[in-house]
Amino acid sequence: KEIPYIGVSYSEAEMLKRSQLFYESMKLRRSVRTFSSQQIPLKLIQNLIKTAGSAPSGANLQPWTFCVVGTDVIKRKIREIVEYEEQMNYSRRMGAKWVLDVAHLHVNWNKPYLTEAPFLIVVMKHTYQITKDDERQPTYYSEISTCIAVGVLLAAIQNAGLVTVTTTPLNAGGQIRELLQRPPNEK
Amino acid sequence: KEIPYIGVSYSEAEMLKRSQLFYESMKLRRSVRTFSSQQIPLKLIQNLIKTAGSAPSGANLQPWTFCVVGTDVIKRKIREIVEYEEQMNYSRRMGAKWVLDVAHLHVNWNKPYLTEAPFLIVVMKHTYQITKDDERQPTYYSEISTCIAVGVLLAAIQNAGLVTVTTTPLNAGGQIRELLQRPPNEK
Ligand SMILES: Cc1cc2nc3c(=O)[nH]c(=O)nc-3n(C[C@H](O)[C@H](O)[C@H](O)COP(=O)(O)O)c2cc1C
Ligand SMILES: Cc1cc2nc3c(=O)[nH]c(=O)nc-3n(C[C@H](O)[C@H](O)[C@H](O)COP(=O)(O)O)c2cc1C
Repeated sequence: KEIPYIGVSYSEAEMLKRSQLFYESMKLRRSVRTFSSQQIPLKLIQNLIKTAGSAPSGANLQPWTFCVVGTDVIKRKIREIVEYEEQMNYSRRMGAKWVLDVAHLHVNWNKPYLTEAPFLIVVMKHTYQITKDDERQPTYYSEISTCIAVGVLLAAIQNAGLVTVTTTPLNAGGQIRELLQRPPNEK
Repeated sequence: KEIPYIGVSYSEAEMLKRSQLFYESMKLRRSVRTFSSQQIPLKLIQNLIKTAGSAPSGANLQPWTFCVVGTDVIKRKIREIVEYEEQMNYSRRMGAKWVLDVAHLHVNWNKPYLTEAPFLIVVMKHTYQITKDDERQPTYYSEISTCIAVGVLLAAIQNAGLVTVTTTPLNAGGQIRELLQRPPNEK
């Protein structure tokens, strides 16, 4: 079914002003690695994720899954997996150059924020999809599309007045997928 | 130099309302492939790109270049490159499955929007960087970081009341890089 597209329309002055205000608000975003224990409603996280899901994607396949983790025991398990792998990254995998490159950030393998934050959002891309007839459907540009959706998510988080840190915990993906009982096409 | 972080702080009700309004605004975003010939000020595009540049990035290396193309002759050349490669994609590279998967979008190799739109934004990721001492600096997660920045850019475009289409013209990257005279580490 086709629906006519209705866009918003602002005057040039309004567009300039909106772009300036949005820039000023996004510019204040910082990766935050220490969180308040204050609870926030799940509805808020749902709005943020629905916003991420409005992102464009190759062939409109929306090749992403956003898993919201709010229970302590799962957060603790994710923290264990990530910290174990990060110790490997710091001590062996990544090499001295990387350790120097991130030194100014004062980060290390210890990630208390993974249990402190009220919610973790685990983002997975679909390397392929399964159709209703149980057939494999290839996805197109699934990593690019999923990361664009993450960019929209980060904008939504900042706009809502919340904070987060984006991380790509090397080598922890498979174990987190198993923990969350997600299918093998989600990476 | 370290500067204390000052975040914004809203009440729970405000956060919910903001997240809802932002979702409603982003949900209206659509990929648009026909553009008005109305000119828009360069300053507006600059605000949008500065917003994209506020995105997080692996080790804070900001491994991206956003090239703004506003002159007709360069837009025409980009259109020629992309249309030539897209004809190859449709007729040979991508296979019948992909052609079917995108059929519902009514798109084809013909891209008049590349010369119609007042501005094209060519996004490149840095596969490595060159330091002031002429040394190669590896980048980390440059594709992921750049695509997150694109997500923030798309949010900024939508927020400003403008429209765009995101595309990844297969095999056209090298020729566009040469046309725009960008260095070999920008892909
Ligand atoms: C793809 C990607 C991976 C990242 N990985 C980590 C990480 O593993 N650990 C961490 O503490 N921060 C990580 N970050 C956050 C960056 O260090 C941070 O964005 C950068 O230093 C800029 O700071 P800002 O986000 O406060 O502007 C990552 C960011 C991106 C985009
Ligand atoms: C990574 C990526 C690549 C895309 N490539 C193309 C493309 O080559 N040509 C095109 O017309 N649209 C392209 N699109 C746009 C999608 O077709 C579009 O986002 C999708 O159909 C959903 O429609 P919407 O953006 O209007 O919500 C691409 C989108 C993404 C995220």
